[in-house]
Amino acid sequence: MRDFLPGDVRRRQFVIDVVRRTYERYGFEPLETPALENIETLTGKYGEEGNKLIFKVLRRGEHESSGETDLALRYDLTVPLARVVAEHRSDLPKFFKRYQIQPVWRADRPARGRFREFYQCDVDAIGSRSPLVEVELCAAVSDVMRELGFQDFSLRLNHRAVLTGLLDAAGVEPARHGDALVVLDKLDKIGRDGVIAELGVRQIPPATAGRLLDGFTERGSNDLTLDRLRATITDDGGRAGVENLAAILQLAAPTSAGPALRLDPSLARGLSYYTGAIMEIAVADLAGSLGGGGRYDGLIGIFSGEQIPACGFSLGLERILVVMAERDMFPPSANASAPDVLVTVFEDRDPARSAQAQEQSLALASELRQAGLRVELYPEPDKLGKQFKYAAARAAAFAAIVGSDELARGEVTLKQLSTGSQESVPRSRIASWIRAHQT
Amino acid sequence: MRDFLPGDVRRRQFVIDVVRRTYERYGFEPLETPALENIETLTGKYGEEGNKLIFKVLRRGEHESSGETDLALRYDLTVPLARVVAEHRSDLPKFFKRYQIQPVWRADRPARGRFREFYQCDVDAIGSRSPLVEVELCAAVSDVMRELGFQDFSLRLNHRAVLTGLLDAAGVEPARHGDALVVLDKLDKIGRDGVIAELGVRQIPPATAGRLLDGFTERGSNDLTLDRLRATITDDGGRAGVENLAAILQLAAPTSAGPALRLDPSLARGLSYYTGAIMEIAVADLAGSLGGGGRYDGLIGIFSGEQIPACGFSLGLERILVVMAERDMFPPSANASAPDVLVTVFEDRDPARSAQAQEQSLALASELRQAGLRVELYPEPDKLGKQFKYAAARAAAFAAIVGSDELARGEVTLKQLSTGSQESVPRSRIASWIRAHQT
Repeated sequence: MRDFLPGDVRRRQFVIDVVRRTYERYGFEPLETPALENIETLTGKYGEEGNKLIFKVLRRGEHESSGETDLALRYDLTVPLARVVAEHRSDLPKFFKRYQIQPVWRADRPARGRFREFYQCDVDAIGSRSPLVEVELCAAVSDVMRELGFQDFSLRLNHRAVLTGLLDAAGVEPARHGDALVVLDKLDKIGRDGVIAELGVRQIPPATAGRLLDGFTERGSNDLTLDRLRATITDDGGRAGVENLAAILQLAAPTSAGPALRLDPSLARGLSYYTGAIMEIAVADLAGSLGGGGRYDGLIGIFSGEQIPACGFSLGLERILVVMAERDMFPPSANASAPDVLVTVFEDRDPARSAQAQEQSLALASELRQAGLRVELYPEPDKLGKQFKYAAARAAAFAAIVGSDELARGEVTLKQLSTGSQESVPRSRIASWIRAHQT
Repeated sequence: MRDFLPGDVRRRQFVIDVVRRTYERYGFEPLETPALENIETLTGKYGEEGNKLIFKVLRRGEHESSGETDLALRYDLTVPLARVVAEHRSDLPKFFKRYQIQPVWRADRPARGRFREFYQCDVDAIGSRSPLVEVELCAAVSDVMRELGFQDFSLRLNHRAVLTGLLDAAGVEPARHGDALVVLDKLDKIGRDGVIAELGVRQIPPATAGRLLDGFTERGSNDLTLDRLRATITDDGGRAGVENLAAILQLAAPTSAGPALRLDPSLARGLSYYTGAIMEIAVADLAGSLGGGGRYDGLIGIFSGEQIPACGFSLGLERILVVMAERDMFPPSANASAPDVLVTVFEDRDPARSAQAQEQSLALASELRQAGLRVELYPEPDKLGKQFKYAAARAAAFAAIVGSDELARGEVTLKQLSTGSQESVPRSRIASWIRAHQT
């Protein structure tokens, strides 16, 4: 877990603002949920591994010594959304499109771009089974990526029923599907031979493993991959999955997601609540993904009893920041933290004159702030040289010197810190003078 | 703990944006710290009551069953700031002016405007003992209040050494100072007689209590109160405190804090880390305060060993929101969540024509979003009547109907939902037409 110093916060805020603005343009609305959920809300939703990574909060007061826990820290933003939809159904529109940008916590071992406290930027659409939903989500996420400056991302697409269909077609018995997917997920890391060996350990014979890997391999284009899936998969669920993917690809073609979408039958997202299409976004330099999502038509029903279809996508803020920092993708505005001007405070041994000087500096700072400038007032009377040095360290472009002679003439001296040049400027024109001289 | 539905988030965001914009204008910079701190960082900093209200997190993995805790949820933003300054001193400017807007957690009994998870908006200046610091903080907070639309707030001001001086002058023995301040804090609620009675229970005789209450009473103006304090307080520390308050009041007079500042010798902020001036902001309708702060020159030293002066102010977001909601102070923009236009999706029994209709609606939505409009696409083909009804429920001003006849002419029909009137508009002019017809 980390502290974010001002420069960090500004870069995070820059990305969050782009995400928020883009999702707003798509008609998504903001939601926020509490950091602490009842522990039962979270347990059993993230698989066995996930359960272990949940931060649990001790009961308070007389129960504290019992060691019992009743609350837990938010582990993702999807399960809280499902709870909210079940709880607030009547206050929400029939189709609820929400985005949510908040931290989540996982007691994971930290790694590059992976932390125990990290932000997710989620966007979800509740209430429709139409593939238009998947398309809009993919388009919104693609717009976010392009607005951030990513040109080379890919959106991998697959379907849970296609995974099952391929496993069935290869002859993997249903009880081993989960195991096989876990191994398959390592294809990038351990290669084809490694996967066949590990599948062998899990009692899936090499011939079956080979058929499986053939089925999972992409072909030259999305259309060729679709043809291959249509030829391989024979069960009704799997066929419906293939046609769902075909519809998503066709509808998405004219949107901003079109060029990025890549049908990848080997994509198998870890979370157990997905029921339909699944997606993952990746860029070349980063092992792992920048985010992912999918359809989860069964999750809300766990909380409400009523089956309500849902589909969503989650972007990982920290991983995006890691790549953007490495590629130097932040515009200058995302780093800007310097004040427009530092107002200095004259030192005077005479207490009355010193108080007067401070009042004059305060008054000037107040005027310039009202004019919309970002003004830092040096916090105490001091030698001018030290104040200039501080102004330079803060990267202020100008220092304002409120001398009594100039004051009598209604003027203030402005010093350009990069050049050292000084100019006496009428008080009423200071803000516009600074704006005009800013580079 | 609460869920914030879209309208709630927008109102919260409106206030946060005003706070952030104002603090930025004063040259403060953003900081964020993790929700979880090491438990030792927090314990012992908030008094005995505070200790009990800290949420503690169970250790993970093999230690989970031990019931031991090692982390705790952020209880305020001041102690984490002190830790950050001690830890990152060399990365921070000599005078570090930061703001921080994040949630904190207290296992308190919920009440009106009081929750177990709530946001604080803190602003602090590190590194100077000058009263200019207090003045700038008070001015910044006053600007926030005025920008939010509050005209009738007051900024109560006192000093820890003045409290001690008054207790000494009244003849309360040092060991009873803490007790006396706790009782005195109830003056608003239980009145003068109630305070005298309760002080009696704590072995402070009625004559002493009476002198004490006289000392704590404001006079007709800040100047008269200052005169009275100068006449009453005799110890050096107390006298220095009075002159510090006099300097703050004089310097603040020409700033936006000037009219709001009210010297109140009875103000006694609860937190034990304050060492100098203390402030509290209040409006007429709300028992309790909207925020408060003060000088804490000793807190950073607990973490770093080096004494670094500091002063800050914390605004409570939820209490501000409660008052603003009751007084209906939010501008329409803070509530706006409606899309500019809902793009409808034609229903067609023929799958190919239905797919084509969906593609056309997607393409239109995409164009209008690129033009900067907030566009909601109806998520599935449906009867137009149902889509108009949904558009009205979402408070969209317009619905766009992408009919094949109009498409052939390069036009789209726009329906104004409030009047029901329809108009066929050339596709290239839709965005500007919508902007021109928005009320």
